[in-house]
Order: sequence, then C-alpha cells, then structure tokens
Amino acid sequence: MRFFSDNAAPVHPRVMAAIAAADTLDTAYDGDARSRALDGRLSELFGTEVAALWVPTGTAANCLALAALCPPHGAVVCHRDAHIQNDEGGAPEFYTHGAKLYLADGEGAKLTPAAIAAVVDGIANDVHRVQPHAISITNATEYGRVYSPDEVAAIGALARDRGLGLHMDGARFANAVATLGCSPAAVTWQAGVDALSFGFVKNGAMSAELLVFFRPSLAAATLYRRKRAGLLLSKGRYLAAQVLAMLEDDLWLDNGRAANARAAELAAAAGARLVHPVEANEVFLHATPEEAARLRAAGFDFYDWAAGEIRLVTAWDSPADQVARLAAAIAAL
Amino acid sequence: MRFFSDNAAPVHPRVMAAIAAADTLDTAYDGDARSRALDGRLSELFGTEVAALWVPTGTAANCLALAALCPPHGAVVCHRDAHIQNDEGGAPEFYTHGAKLYLADGEGAKLTPAAIAAVVDGIANDVHRVQPHAISITNATEYGRVYSPDEVAAIGALARDRGLGLHMDGARFANAVATLGCSPAAVTWQAGVDALSFGFVKNGAMSAELLVFFRPSLAAATLYRRKRAGLLLSKGRYLAAQVLAMLEDDLWLDNGRAANARAAELAAAAGARLVHPVEANEVFLHATPEEAARLRAAGFDFYDWAAGEIRLVTAWDSPADQVARLAAAIAAL
Amino acid sequence: MRFFSDNAAPVHPRVMAAIAAADTLDTAYDGDARSRALDGRLSELFGTEVAALWVPTGTAANCLALAALCPPHGAVVCHRDAHIQNDEGGAPEFYTHGAKLYLADGEGAKLTPAAIAAVVDGIANDVHRVQPHAISITNATEYGRVYSPDEVAAIGALARDRGLGLHMDGARFANAVATLGCSPAAVTWQAGVDALSFGFVKNGAMSAELLVFFRPSLAAATLYRRKRAGLLLSKGRYLAAQVLAMLEDDLWLDNGRAANARAAELAAAAGARLVHPVEANEVFLHATPEEAARLRAAGFDFYDWAAGEIRLVTAWDSPADQVARLAAAIAAL
Amino acid sequence: MRFFSDNAAPVHPRVMAAIAAADTLDTAYDGDARSRALDGRLSELFGTEVAALWVPTGTAANCLALAALCPPHGAVVCHRDAHIQNDEGGAPEFYTHGAKLYLADGEGAKLTPAAIAAVVDGIANDVHRVQPHAISITNATEYGRVYSPDEVAAIGALARDRGLGLHMDGARFANAVATLGCSPAAVTWQAGVDALSFGFVKNGAMSAELLVFFRPSLAAATLYRRKRAGLLLSKGRYLAAQVLAMLEDDLWLDNGRAANARAAELAAAAGARLVHPVEANEVFLHATPEEAARLRAAGFDFYDWAAGEIRLVTAWDSPADQVARLAAAIAAL
Repeated sequence: MRFFSDNAAPVHPRVMAAIAAADTLDTAYDGDARSRALDGRLSELFGTEVAALWVPTGTAANCLALAALCPPHGAVVCHRDAHIQNDEGGAPEFYTHGAKLYLADGEGAKLTPAAIAAVVDGIANDVHRVQPHAISITNATEYGRVYSPDEVAAIGALARDRGLGLHMDGARFANAVATLGCSPAAVTWQAGVDALSFGFVKNGAMSAELLVFFRPSLAAATLYRRKRAGLLLSKGRYLAAQVLAMLEDDLWLDNGRAANARAAELAAAAGARLVHPVEANEVFLHATPEEAARLRAAGFDFYDWAAGEIRLVTAWDSPADQVARLAAAIAAL
Repeated sequence: MRFFSDNAAPVHPRVMAAIAAADTLDTAYDGDARSRALDGRLSELFGTEVAALWVPTGTAANCLALAALCPPHGAVVCHRDAHIQNDEGGAPEFYTHGAKLYLADGEGAKLTPAAIAAVVDGIANDVHRVQPHAISITNATEYGRVYSPDEVAAIGALARDRGLGLHMDGARFANAVATLGCSPAAVTWQAGVDALSFGFVKNGAMSAELLVFFRPSLAAATLYRRKRAGLLLSKGRYLAAQVLAMLEDDLWLDNGRAANARAAELAAAAGARLVHPVEANEVFLHATPEEAARLRAAGFDFYDWAAGEIRLVTAWDSPADQVARLAAAIAAL
Repeated sequence: MRFFSDNAAPVHPRVMAAIAAADTLDTAYDGDARSRALDGRLSELFGTEVAALWVPTGTAANCLALAALCPPHGAVVCHRDAHIQNDEGGAPEFYTHGAKLYLADGEGAKLTPAAIAAVVDGIANDVHRVQPHAISITNATEYGRVYSPDEVAAIGALARDRGLGLHMDGARFANAVATLGCSPAAVTWQAGVDALSFGFVKNGAMSAELLVFFRPSLAAATLYRRKRAGLLLSKGRYLAAQVLAMLEDDLWLDNGRAANARAAELAAAAGARLVHPVEANEVFLHATPEEAARLRAAGFDFYDWAAGEIRLVTAWDSPADQVARLAAAIAAL
Repeated sequence: MRFFSDNAAPVHPRVMAAIAAADTLDTAYDGDARSRALDGRLSELFGTEVAALWVPTGTAANCLALAALCPPHGAVVCHRDAHIQNDEGGAPEFYTHGAKLYLADGEGAKLTPAAIAAVVDGIANDVHRVQPHAISITNATEYGRVYSPDEVAAIGALARDRGLGLHMDGARFANAVATLGCSPAAVTWQAGVDALSFGFVKNGAMSAELLVFFRPSLAAATLYRRKRAGLLLSKGRYLAAQVLAMLEDDLWLDNGRAANARAAELAAAAGARLVHPVEANEVFLHATPEEAARLRAAGFDFYDWAAGEIRLVTAWDSPADQVARLAAAIAAL
C-alpha cells in the first residue's frame, strides 16, 4: 500500500480516455486544436487573459517561469525547503543561466513578507551583490501547508513594492484550492502572482503540466525557451488533451478534494503525532524508527523525512480501505 | 491527406496498448520496472553493453548527447542543414552551455571524412579558436539519405584519429536501418558511434525518444543533466512502455519499412522530379509553385522546401490509397 | 623587426605617465574620479549622452555588448571572418549564454545590407529557428577595410527596420576614423550604432578598452554583467587613466594616423601584390612561401595568412626606418 | 585616512618599476618571456610542479578555479560569508554555468571538516539533489582569520575522502602566510589544496592575480576558459611582470607582514572591542554608531560591517603615523 508520493499515481480514466481520443492526425508541436485551445480555456478558468504553455514536468514549468522573471545575473528568493532548491537537480540555475536562489525561512515551508524582506533588505544595491528579481512560493508547500489569498496578497504587495516578480509553484495547486474553497484567481493573479506552475501530474494526469502567465507578454520569449530546452513535444495534442480533461467539469478540483479528504482521515488518526497541520494531501508524523518499521511491516510504504519523522502522501486514487487501515495502524502505534 | 511530416502521425495501437498497460502504480521517475529494463533490452538489441535513457523529445536526446561529448568551450561539427543547427531553437547551445556548431557541406546533408577534415583541419590548435570535440551526423539525413555502415565507419575512423566523439541523430534511425538491412550495431557502435538518438516518435510512439550511449560511462553525468533540464518525467513508466512496445517483435523496423515502402511508391511516380535519391521516407520533388498548388488543390498537404522544391513525408500509417492517389497526381503533373 | 600585430606594441609614453600619475589612493573598482569621468568625457567626444565602461580586453568589450543586445535564445549576424567568430575562443557564446552567430559574406570582411538581409530573411519566424537580434560589424575590418558613415548608416537602417541592435567592434576604431576624417559620431550613433567597442590597446594603451553605449540604458545590466564576468578590476583608476590619456589632445587619432601612414608606405611599395586596398594599418600581400621566407630572412616578422598571403601590421610606434626597409624589401621581391 | 580596504592601495614602487621595464615589444597574450616564466617561478616557490595563469581579478581567479573543479550540475561548499557567495556578483555561477554554492557555517568565516560534512552528508546521492564536487575556503578569511596547515589538511583529508576538489581563495594569502610563518607549500598542496587564487592586487600589485593549479592537468581546459571569458589580455607581459616583481626577494611576504603589523597595532589598542582575533590585516571592532561617527569625524574612513561593528583594513603602505593616530583614537573611544 503506497503512500510514498502522489507523483507516481495512475492516470485518471477520463485523462486516459482523452489521450486515446487525441489519437488522430493533427498539426505537430503546439499547433493542434487542443493546444491552441489552452489560452482560452485557462483565461476562462482564471477570469483574466492568460497565456498557457504545456510542458512535460513541473520542474520545466517552474524553471521556465523563473527564467521569465529573473535574468542570469539576478536572484530568486524562495524557502529553504523549496522544491526548486532541493529537488530539481539545479534546473533553476540551468534555465536561468546561473541566477542564485536566496533562501528564506518560515514555518511549514511558507514564506512571509517579513521573512522575504529580511533577505532582500540585506542585499546592498551594488554590482557586487546579486540582486533579487523574483520571489517563488509553493502552494501547497512541501509540508502540505496552504497559503490563503490574503497571505499571497501580502507577498504580492511586497513583490510589487520591491519590483520583484512573483511565481507560484503549484505542483499541488489543486489540493490548495480544494482546501481554500476560493477561486483560482483569488489566490493567484488577484493576489499578485505573475506566473503559476499549474500541476496536473500529481493529480491524475500522465505527463502534462501547465505554465500559466498572468502577464501574457511573458510568454513570448518563453515559447522560444521551451523549444530551446527540448521541451516542445512533437505531438503536443496528447499533452493538451490531458489538461483539457483535467479541467473539464472540474476534475482537477474533485481529484484534489479526494486526496485531501484521505489525508484528513490520516490526520484525524494521527492527532498529536502531526508535525504540521494537514491542509492538503501530505501528512507528516512524528514516528520513531521502530514505529515506522511497524507501519512498514503492516504493508505501508512511505518516505522517511527528517529524523523521527515520516511522510505520508495521499493521491486522487488512494483506496478508501487502505487509508482506513493506515489510519487504524497509526492510531494503534 | 497529410504528407507534411511524420512527426505528428498517430500512435501505433500496440504502443497505445502498452501505455494503457502501464497504468498501474510503480516507482516514480525512472525507478519503475519498465525504465529499469531499458539498458538490458537495448544492450540485447545492439549486442553490446549500452546505457539507455528515455527523454520526451529528439531535441533533448540530441542535445544531452552533445553535452556528453563536448565541453562548453568546444565545438561540434555537423552538416550545414542538420536539424541541430536549424530546427532546435538553439538547444545544442543551451545544453552544451554555448559550444559552437561548425558547419560542413555535403551532398544530401551527408558528411564525409573529407568534408569534416576540411573544417577541422582549418582550426589552429590555439586558445583563440574554439576546438572541435565531436561530430554529429544524421541517419537518415534531413534529405532522407542514408549512411551505410562503411560510410559511418570512415567518419568514425576520422573521429578516433582526431580525438572527437561521434553522435548519430537517429530521429529516423528505423527508416535508415530498414533500408540498410544491416544490424543496428553495424551502423552505430561497430562503426565508431558513441551516442545515438534513437527516434521513436516519428515512427509510431507518442512521446518517447531514447538516448543510447555505447560508452555507458557517458550516462553517469547525463542522468544528472537530464534531471537538471526538467526532462525526468515523474511517471517514466509511460515512456519506457512506449520504447519496449516499439522494440517488441521489431515493430520499429516494421514501421520504418512501411513508411519507406510508401515513399518508394511516390519516388517511382516522381522519376526525374526527384531532388534526392529516396532512401528512407522523405521525398523531395522539383515542383513549380503552380504544380504545388495543383497538388494542394487535390487535397494533399506538404511542406514547401527551397524555391521550386516540395517535401513529401510518409509515415508508418500513411494510407495506401492516399499514397496511390498522390503518386498518380505526381505522375500527372 | 616586428610586423606581426599591433596588439603587442609598447605603451605610449603619455599613457605610461598617466598610469604613474594614477598611483595614489582612490576609491576601488570604478568609483574613482577617473572612472567616474568617463561617461562625461566620452559624451563630449561623441556629442551625445553615452555610458562608457572600461574593460581589460576587446573580447570583453565585444561580448558584453553582444550580451546587452541579444538574449541567450537569439542570434547575432556577423561576417564569416569576424574576430568574434574566429578569434575569441567562444567568448560571444559564453557571455550571451549560448546565442548563435549567423555568418554572412562580404568582400574585405565588410557586411552589406544585402548580405545581412540574405541571412536574416531566410530565418522563418518560428520557435524552431534561432531568431536574429543583433548585427555586429568591425571597423576597421579584419582585412583593414573601413566602413564609411554612409555604409554604416545603410546597415543601421536595416537594423532598425528589422528590429535588430547594431554593434561595432572598434578594436581599430582609431585607424578607421583617422582614415575617414569624419567625427566619431558620424560613423557610430549617427549611423545607427548602439554599442561600440572602442579599442585602445592596439593603439598605445596597456590594458584598457572601452565599451560605449549610445543607448545609455543598456549600461544598467551591463554593469552587473561586467562584475559577474570577473572584469571589474579593483584599481580601475589605472584603466580609466589610460583611456583619458589616449583621448587627451586626440592622442588616439594621432596614433591611428601614424600607424596608417606607415601602412600606406608599405602599400605603395606593394603595388599589385595587395590582396585588399589598404585603408587602415593592415597590409595583406600575395607572396609565395619563398618570398615570405626571403622577407623573414631579412629580419621581418609577420603572420602567414591564407595560402599565398601574408599579413603585415603597423602600429603607432612602427619605426620609420624599419618600415622603409620593409617597403624596399617588398618592392625588391 | 583610509582604512576602508586594501584593494585600492597604491602600487608598490618595485611593481611599478617592473611594469615600466616590461614596456618593450614582446609576444602577445601569454607568449612573452615573463608569462612563460611563471610556471617555473611558482613551481620553485611551492616546491612542486604547478601551472600558473595570470588573470586581472581575484574573482576571475576564483571562478576559473571553481569551473575547473566543479561541473555545471555540481555544487561547491563554501562558508556562508565567503567572498564567492556575497561579493562576486554571481561570477561563480557564471563561470561554472550554474553550479550551486552550498553554504556552511563556522566561526570567523572558517570552515571545519565537521561543518562541511554536515552539509555534504545531508545531500542524498540522487539526481534530484545537486551533488557537491568541491570545497572552497578562504585564507585569510573574510574576517581576517587564518587557517593553519593542520586545519587545511583536515579539510583536505575530508575532500579526498568524499572525492571533492579543494580550492583556496588566497586574496590575502600573503597575510596568512606571513602570520603562519610556514612555507606556502605547507598550507596549500601539502594540505590537499588543488587550486589557489594567489592574490597580489590587495598586496601591492596593480592588476595581476594568479591562479595556481597544484594538479597542472587542470590548467589545460582553463587556458581555453580564460580566453573564452575575455580575460586573456593582449599585453600579458605587464601582468606577469607584476607577479615576478612581487615574488622577487619575497616582496609579497614583506608586504603581507607590513600590513599585518599595522593591524596588530590597531588590535592592541582595541582590546575587548575586537569582534574576531586579529590574525591578518583586518580588524573588526564593536562600535556604536556614535563611536563610528567619532572616528570618522577624526578623519578615518572605514566600512560599517554588521550592526554595531566596523571593519578597519590595513595595507602594505598604511602610514605608520596614521595607524598610530587611529590606534589612539580607538583606545580613546
């Protein structure tokens, strides 16, 4: 029973059906009807004009966004535990041609205006120091915490004030919005976000992630960068089809809600063991090595996080019975 | 009726079935059983130990190969009409961190040892000149010409002599091998090739290309580069499944033969109109704008190449009746 | 007797005196009084507001200029024989993060609007092709040819029309202006040049070259790039002092005229042997290997150019008697 | 009276004389007799075969060293307060094509094996994490602290054990060796250092720093990188002359001792105000803004460091009377 990560979950049947339905001849790259529909479909979802580009990985989405917001000689402020710092193999530095990541602290991997200002305001305005050009936040965070629209807006206001771009890594954006119950607009462009990595792979897609620019002019150079990075697949219709299927009838939100609900069941069972409040689909528990071993012996697979902590992740398809058994096993520790 | 390119053709049913069959939970990235089978499966096909990495585009395969063979301060010799020079949006320069491409000439986009030597030997051994470190050839070429094992071996011998790596862009490798009737080994590592971009997308896959290193040690750093480029998909099993399906019972060769056969029918009809001998699945014709317009009016879609030339490309699934009608239309011009 | 190149000539006494005079304490980097005087002094010389940055090499000046005019995913059009293509070890690709150089042809290493258009207009406006963003010309050229203000203006008009930046490599700008007899403004910004590499090292300085932006806003990011490239010397006053000394009482022009005059003497002696008209301080001669050997035996040192050609370069300090002896030796061949 | 930094101090008369003496014609770039003498001269100084390259800045020396030791997809471990992290405008990332700097802690900007291991051992051996490839330490450090041969050797042993290269930023190497009284070899290659940035500019040179490779094979690619970075000055003899003058009769050590002695006088006056032990030529004092203002009012110029701290730097030429007056002023605070 796998609670290792949501990133390897199967593909939702409606997505698989959409892939099969795309199996006809159409124009190559992003010239097909489905790819050309993305700008419009996403503009509708967000209630403002956006530019939307499919890419095959979240790393690609994040790093194309950073390259659009930060020059090679600049820096991006992110949380010390951000995926772009720790889990993308240096892709931000590759795509930006060597921009720096400045690391800020914050509970639950969340940044605050104060934490960002503490970093940014210590940088003398001087050619010897790498100047910050952008901020990147993750919603939901690496610890499954969620930024509210107000929290994002406070960071957005700081970004505007200091002349910085604002990127949101939304690998688990669906889980965040499912929790918030707000519009996708409220927690993004209305709060000052310039670019969103809108994740679908962890949420039921096969290989399609989306980079959404709320300032559509940012897409112009990014179209070149996407090709230059070897990310422009010949048969883009199979990626666009996944995105469109995920958006249809709010499948993305339903999947996000399903995963969150399963995590909530685990959280309820965990009680005082919780390392972080559970606001999305990740559950971090205090567990001794012996306790972890007991859970594994009972057939559960998961990730050892820091010393004395384990991470459990639910997905859109986490079987109810397995979750119930895991919850019981946790309660019985 | 579309003869524009093979790069947008539908996915072969056996590949689609393999994708569906992969729709179970497995380890993320390239840790799944299918991805882990690739080294072995390709080593078997090539009769030598190789390292094989899936990537989502041919551009990615080519450029990871170039980065493995050439440092940032070096150069790669390729044909003036090579895909890496003209059609990859500067990806070779991105992946190599700014290596140069030195352009050589040759009939049918084929390089010869003499043409390569003419470029390489003009470069003084001096820090002011960018030194060549690798050669890249394309088989089949941009003009549908095929290098024989002997021709590749002659280039391989030159490469060894000058201390240069040798890369083969095999976006249409299946078409080349189908024509040659030789083993895949004969035209690659046995002829001195260090790295092969083994193309599947133009030949019936959906989104999986393969980078094959005949010097497996080259893969070590490339695994990091693939991740760093945002090319390491979370659900790699869906890519590996495509490759395995293409290799099973030589589907790749059957598809290559099918496309070639269709092209041969067009070539037979074209006669003196042929710009290049037809050795794979591309047919270049002399055609006036009026003649091109007449073909289009008859429902055929294709690419205008140079002035007075058009390009027709067949694919694994080009319908026999459409090809027959196009052949007749060409003959009737 | 050395006619190998002007790039190793001694330092002019007035420059050496200025270096010695700068040997007091002042602010580090470019904060000293001399460095801060450059913008004003160069604005005066060019009759328009410019931004001027010292750098230690012409390669650095050229490549910072290109990086200011061309993004990583773009291309610069230059002559096939340009210094940036052949003699800078890939520095343009390093500084621009992998932009391409598109090579154009032209007699005497001079570009024309037609030659540039032939390259640029063949590039489809498509993400698969690297788009041109700038043009770089060299005045005087690698073959000692000089662009007139009208010739530059014609290229400048093309650049504006196609939305391209225009850079002038002026490693031998003094020699060109000395020949033209025009104002420095006439052959640069008034003709559409955006950035000039204003060379001093070949003309009597020790280690100071100047990058002049006629659109001063281009300097903002370049100040960061200069530091990031390790080019911001701690004791910039010694570089600024060289530039100021070269500009004082038009020493740069006097030196350029002196070198040109010596070259003219050689040209007069060479007559029909000249490969190119002599318009600056470089003299290319047809000479058999035997003739070249005879000149060398007579004590003259120079560069073998293409087969059957030699290059003789005069400098600001070429001794009159040595030049006279070389002229006689040439005439006697 | 300037105690701001040693990086803007005048040039030592013997260095200036050497520059003047180099003012004859010689081969360009690094082909002149003086440049060609460097490998031998430095091999003699260090008692082992080394390769030595002049460059115009310490940033260039540091970053060429890092590029030689770390691939683009790797990381360098350095102190959180290292010059390469904070004061080089992102040059390490530029030269390495985007390698990361991993920051470690340590008193007085000194690293220890434990501090390095704490960083390195937390990096999973996984393509998602940027792997460490090198360590960079600074001797003397940003806070004027000195690593002993034993301390370096302990880090060198760790480096060897983990397969990491070891670079020493010796912008103030002379000050460190002057304090240690050891051989230059003892604190470098004999302790495991692979590459040293040997600083001269802060110590009496005008514009010459030296990159010394104790594994001479590392120089091969670096010669190309130096040219590619626009750092290969045409008239290299003026740089080599500075280095040779600094080495002659141990001028570098004498100058280092002189600066250290002046700093010791200030340290003695400062007593309990010292933030760090004074081991080289930098003196950090606790001082309230009012106290700092009082020193400034008395004519002393210096840098405000952290809140409540000021930095005073002596140089090879700090006038004895000025130092005495400053010492008195400090004692009187």
